[in-house]
Amino acid sequence: MNTLDRQKDMLNIINDEILTYLRKYAGKEMYKPMEYSLKAGGKRFRPMIMLLMCEALSGKYEDAMPFAVAMECIHTYSLIHDDLPSMDNDDLRRGMPTCHIKFNEATAVLAGDGLLNIAFEIMLDKLKNNFEKRYLDAIYCIAIASGTNGMIKGQALDIDAEGKNISEDELFDIYENKTGKLILASIKCGAIIGGASIEQLKIIEDIAYKLGIAFQIQDDILDIEGNQQEIGKPLNSDLKNNKSTYVSIYGMEKSKNDYKELSSKVLENLRNLHLDNKDIYHYIKKLINRTN
Amino acid sequence: MNTLDRQKDMLNIINDEILTYLRKYAGKEMYKPMEYSLKAGGKRFRPMIMLLMCEALSGKYEDAMPFAVAMECIHTYSLIHDDLPSMDNDDLRRGMPTCHIKFNEATAVLAGDGLLNIAFEIMLDKLKNNFEKRYLDAIYCIAIASGTNGMIKGQALDIDAEGKNISEDELFDIYENKTGKLILASIKCGAIIGGASIEQLKIIEDIAYKLGIAFQIQDDILDIEGNQQEIGKPLNSDLKNNKSTYVSIYGMEKSKNDYKELSSKVLENLRNLHLDNKDIYHYIKKLINRTN
Repeated sequence: MNTLDRQKDMLNIINDEILTYLRKYAGKEMYKPMEYSLKAGGKRFRPMIMLLMCEALSGKYEDAMPFAVAMECIHTYSLIHDDLPSMDNDDLRRGMPTCHIKFNEATAVLAGDGLLNIAFEIMLDKLKNNFEKRYLDAIYCIAIASGTNGMIKGQALDIDAEGKNISEDELFDIYENKTGKLILASIKCGAIIGGASIEQLKIIEDIAYKLGIAFQIQDDILDIEGNQQEIGKPLNSDLKNNKSTYVSIYGMEKSKNDYKELSSKVLENLRNLHLDNKDIYHYIKKLINRTN
Repeated sequence: MNTLDRQKDMLNIINDEILTYLRKYAGKEMYKPMEYSLKAGGKRFRPMIMLLMCEALSGKYEDAMPFAVAMECIHTYSLIHDDLPSMDNDDLRRGMPTCHIKFNEATAVLAGDGLLNIAFEIMLDKLKNNFEKRYLDAIYCIAIASGTNGMIKGQALDIDAEGKNISEDELFDIYENKTGKLILASIKCGAIIGGASIEQLKIIEDIAYKLGIAFQIQDDILDIEGNQQEIGKPLNSDLKNNKSTYVSIYGMEKSKNDYKELSSKVLENLRNLHLDNKDIYHYIKKLINRTN
């Protein structure tokens, strides 16, 4: 199977598994809003890099699957709560009505809560069936990344920064926490389950950190220059929300240059890992050239 | 130390430990709202029954402490989200402004999310330091109880029932899930960590189930007949919110009789466990006679 087919194949597997796990773990009252929000999901970026990194280290992607699904549940919960009227107040996400618009606000709060909880149920169940240290390390890694020293910290900083002029350091702090930490945890989990050495883990963490920041800069660029239909939300939404972005602080030219530099570093470091399986390399390379 | 002093002592230990754990695990951005809501906490009913049950089976209460603190974090997060304008829209809880009134709505959403996440961080850390099956069983038990087949299910049913006449079965379904499952998980975790046998666990689950229902009926009675200052929220709040309660369905007399019968059963079954340490028996007995 060539690389592109392999990526499509993996994406289909992930989409199927997400629904299989949801059917197994979700109570019937909350099934629909959680399914709706999970199905609205796009690239499955986090599960993809987790599974491909696991495979790149000669691990079995099936071993990492519960964690990949859990990661997507956590990512989705964070979007549901982030879209709430009291937070970013977004009516659209990926071209579809957000959870509180499609259902109602109370349901959106509970659907988010439910998805975070289910993420842990799925991961703990895997650990119950395979009582191995690497699985506990993977759960712990995700738990720390999604908490008040990770993603939630980033959201709190983000809300606090709204309408203010923030410094470059403050912006990096938001990026590193709000989106960076879950991206880092995704790759790291794949590496842990795949059996990475401590030296490999160090390089992988650096890759993941840079990728997280690059990913966010790219989002800021696409928010201004992207194709509205492809992105699925109105352009200039950051501007509308009075949010400082990489582009608003550094300007478009420097943003693009920094983005290119970070991306090259990511790819260079990935090459330096001398992986047998290059799927993750090709996937990230494609992602770096995305237009939505 | 006599029983009453022992209870007060344990309550002080729990209150101290909650803050110690919070300081250790909470990111600084979310510390204050989480601390505020945790400090507003009253009886520490769930941690108490967990620790006392662990001790009653000759376990060390310290081993159960991370789970007791985690349980209180989960209980507190559920109250914060339950009080939100889109949910029960309560301004007061235990006589103090609710989290979204004291801070703001976005902060309350994130404080709830943060507390659920921290609960898992605390429990997983314990498992990392003591990689034993009983601790995993305890985490799993709590995860299931707080999820969409447990507490969140109960909240979804509760919201759905608002303004409707519901059947007795539907009311029991709400009670069992919304409050019952966390109470059951609290006692069960204490028993698991304390080393209960399978036979003991069965009796304890029955006790916990009845206690959860009794606790909720008692709440309904106190909502009408209680002392407003002691309860810390306006009386008749269920009536105001158009909620069916045990009292509205069965009337006050039957409610009181059923409550007495359930309570006696709980105490009888506790006696049948022939525990060496009777603190849990005395604690629950006192609780059954509470007026707030």
